[in-house]
Amino acid sequence: MAKVKITETVLRDGHQSLLATRMRLSQMLPQLEALDAIGYKSLEAWGGATFDSCLRFLDEDPWERLDTLKAHLKTPIQMLLRGQNLLGYYQYPDDVVRAFVKKAAQHGIGVFRIFDALNDTRNLKTAVEAAKEAKAEVEHSVEVQGCLVYTVGGPHTIAEFGKLAKELDAMGVDSICIKDMSGLLKPYDAYELVKELKASTKLPIQLHTHYTSGFGSMAYMKAIEAGVDVIDCALSPFAMDTSQPCTETMVAALEGTEYDTGLDRQAMTPIAKHFLGVKKEIIDEFGLKGYFDVNPNVLDFQIPGGMLSNLVNQLKEMGMADKYQDLLDEMPRVRADLGYPPLVTPSSQIVGTMATFNVMTGERYKMVPDEFKKLARGEFGRTPQPVNPEVLEKCGIKEEDLVTCRPADLLEPGMDKFKAELADKGFPNASEEDVLSYALFPAVAEEFFKKRTVKTLKELGVANPTDEDVLLYNLDAEVAKKFFAAK
Amino acid sequence: MAKVKITETVLRDGHQSLLATRMRLSQMLPQLEALDAIGYKSLEAWGGATFDSCLRFLDEDPWERLDTLKAHLKTPIQMLLRGQNLLGYYQYPDDVVRAFVKKAAQHGIGVFRIFDALNDTRNLKTAVEAAKEAKAEVEHSVEVQGCLVYTVGGPHTIAEFGKLAKELDAMGVDSICIKDMSGLLKPYDAYELVKELKASTKLPIQLHTHYTSGFGSMAYMKAIEAGVDVIDCALSPFAMDTSQPCTETMVAALEGTEYDTGLDRQAMTPIAKHFLGVKKEIIDEFGLKGYFDVNPNVLDFQIPGGMLSNLVNQLKEMGMADKYQDLLDEMPRVRADLGYPPLVTPSSQIVGTMATFNVMTGERYKMVPDEFKKLARGEFGRTPQPVNPEVLEKCGIKEEDLVTCRPADLLEPGMDKFKAELADKGFPNASEEDVLSYALFPAVAEEFFKKRTVKTLKELGVANPTDEDVLLYNLDAEVAKKFFAAK
Ligand SMILES: [Co+2]
Ligand SMILES: [Co+2]
Repeated sequence: MAKVKITETVLRDGHQSLLATRMRLSQMLPQLEALDAIGYKSLEAWGGATFDSCLRFLDEDPWERLDTLKAHLKTPIQMLLRGQNLLGYYQYPDDVVRAFVKKAAQHGIGVFRIFDALNDTRNLKTAVEAAKEAKAEVEHSVEVQGCLVYTVGGPHTIAEFGKLAKELDAMGVDSICIKDMSGLLKPYDAYELVKELKASTKLPIQLHTHYTSGFGSMAYMKAIEAGVDVIDCALSPFAMDTSQPCTETMVAALEGTEYDTGLDRQAMTPIAKHFLGVKKEIIDEFGLKGYFDVNPNVLDFQIPGGMLSNLVNQLKEMGMADKYQDLLDEMPRVRADLGYPPLVTPSSQIVGTMATFNVMTGERYKMVPDEFKKLARGEFGRTPQPVNPEVLEKCGIKEEDLVTCRPADLLEPGMDKFKAELADKGFPNASEEDVLSYALFPAVAEEFFKKRTVKTLKELGVANPTDEDVLLYNLDAEVAKKFFAAK
Repeated sequence: MAKVKITETVLRDGHQSLLATRMRLSQMLPQLEALDAIGYKSLEAWGGATFDSCLRFLDEDPWERLDTLKAHLKTPIQMLLRGQNLLGYYQYPDDVVRAFVKKAAQHGIGVFRIFDALNDTRNLKTAVEAAKEAKAEVEHSVEVQGCLVYTVGGPHTIAEFGKLAKELDAMGVDSICIKDMSGLLKPYDAYELVKELKASTKLPIQLHTHYTSGFGSMAYMKAIEAGVDVIDCALSPFAMDTSQPCTETMVAALEGTEYDTGLDRQAMTPIAKHFLGVKKEIIDEFGLKGYFDVNPNVLDFQIPGGMLSNLVNQLKEMGMADKYQDLLDEMPRVRADLGYPPLVTPSSQIVGTMATFNVMTGERYKMVPDEFKKLARGEFGRTPQPVNPEVLEKCGIKEEDLVTCRPADLLEPGMDKFKAELADKGFPNASEEDVLSYALFPAVAEEFFKKRTVKTLKELGVANPTDEDVLLYNLDAEVAKKFFAAK
């Protein structure tokens, strides 16, 4: 019997889920060798919100973080990639996607976990192809993992997920991940789903869930009994609540059974102790909560508890607190109108806001936010079922407005444009990595580049670098060095 | 297929585990009718540490609390009773045990869950008999539930638990509870254990666990697959961490399966919302934490994380921080010497302290605390295996010092003595309930009685009652009333 393997998420999803992605590289470094020695299938450590957080909050260059991680780890480093959206919120042109994936592989990514929020495989195509091409270009092994985003309701049956798995298989991925980002996967459904996927493809199946509704470990257990190959877990201080099931717990639960992971739980104790300290540091530094109540209500509305509270507050502010039940009833109707998208960012916000508007105005689709129209038009990709034609009409979307092709086919190449923009902003010598950072998070990246130059200038002895000093250095670092040395 | 039933613990073990047993009756009252309507198998709401906490911290009479609960609930009220120890820390004479159980039944207890920390059934005998007798004395139904305290190591095999179940069955209990107070029960062991118990007895089997090590819901799931009849759960705000698995989660996980509980999850939402507010109130009022990291290390040492930290701090204070690993190694040896007692209060403290002394002094059993000697002598009952004779010798315990009979057989009757003591202290008219409260927690109860009289006197218009006023009222309330009215 094949042993169950574990992907450790403490370096990415663990702190993204519990502590707003605020873990610094310096807080990871002391335990990288120890983590590397455990024998994990992979260490998820990059992508997701870490890229944005590095630039925005932690003053870290995400590419440098990846280099450092790679220098300390033999275990494959996994990144989470949002298909054509990369790590941002909109779709990028194919050349940007290709460049990003290639660079990520060059800097050390060993597992590309690629998903699309609508399960539209056309949105995975370029990223998957680029990751496959990267295999030949880097020395370390590269695994291309396709995701199926788990959701329930409407057309989302276990048989449909089986078909999706076959589609991913046909695209040439190396493995398939069931991505249950909202923690909706019930244990006995997990069993059926894994059985179905195992019947649909010979590829290894990995399961990723969140403990939000409390199913986490139960779903893993039934998935394991159905033959799942890999589960995603987080070490104890970064496990449970809205994060993954606990690594040590799952290892212990399987010890001595036919599913034994073979991992040394005692070796995890000092690592967990370190990260418990890190957790306390982050909670203190950023004033975060770090602990969350189990929230089975997420099953009913499929939107995060925090977002639901916000919508309810909006109602209250409008003096419509009594419409709470109407809002709860309206949300699944809006989702059905949209063709049952999985409710994840940004579709969860779009559905929630639209439902709130419908309830507030008392007339459905009287006020329609632009984002709703984009999703309805097909700008994010194909919704699982066609959008309700009446709703399209109310939104003033005509047949000919619909995007039926792969949305990225409508996009002009972007790398040269982003490079030119950066040059205009005073960074004519930006590296390709910097261009990619800028493409993903323009304002944040620009701010980061300036701060980075200020830091460099201070190291060069410029006590209080001015905007002009920064510009000069970015225009020509060598000239600038001579200039400042001469001053 | 029989539906799985649920015992709800939000009114007892939930807040005992997460919030130091600080929930007030007033915080329960608003949702009692709603809880009653759910269809729980029972509501655990009394016993355990609630009795002590009522008197010590909440200024509530535990008997009055029980009356009020009973007045609002048709669902059987469950209490946790520590066999011959009742709710205290030492064994009580049989007449006290009988009187306590009878009174508890009269005040409304519908399920007596009775356990002994050493699994010595002789310590359950009187309480079980008294609870069986109570069936004929009260109008509501009474269930007598015998516990097997789950532990691992040494002689604690699944076959041995099967034998224990047969012993409990022969004593005439109505059902058997697997009491996994430390959360040690691994899911696949839960499966085997329930199968064994089901083969050993026809009695309903209930499972009680804590999420401490993260096994909780997995253990329930495998126990359910093995045929367990009832599981103990807590509503979401008081679930998980060191408490029970979440009620709503388990209901949702089983929905639509052959194990469906049939309970209405939606009806639980407003109740959970109320108790989330209560949780916040208690955290604020008492400055408590309320949230705990999952702690799989409990599996290795079987003692609560907090206690381990205390022992480690003791080592540090002695300048012996480097002896940490020695301490970890010594604990299982001490437990083996004592014949492998389950590690619960007080045996966990006794083993931990003894191991610390052994490591600190550098010579095993050079310094031996009295409590250790008591346990070794058999004063708490029969240890699962005989105590190591070498250790008995080092402790100066001779063959003839050993307690081999049922320890309570050595105790003189106690009710008259406690009543006389209370009279001496100025409470000659104490009710039997008060005598029992005093028997369990003498100093705390006396203090509570005084405060209670002060409150009554203030209601009678005595602005600042003196000690003498209190004494007068307790000696003769009617005379006192006339006296104060005349003043
Ligand atoms: Co995730
Ligand atoms: Co308990």
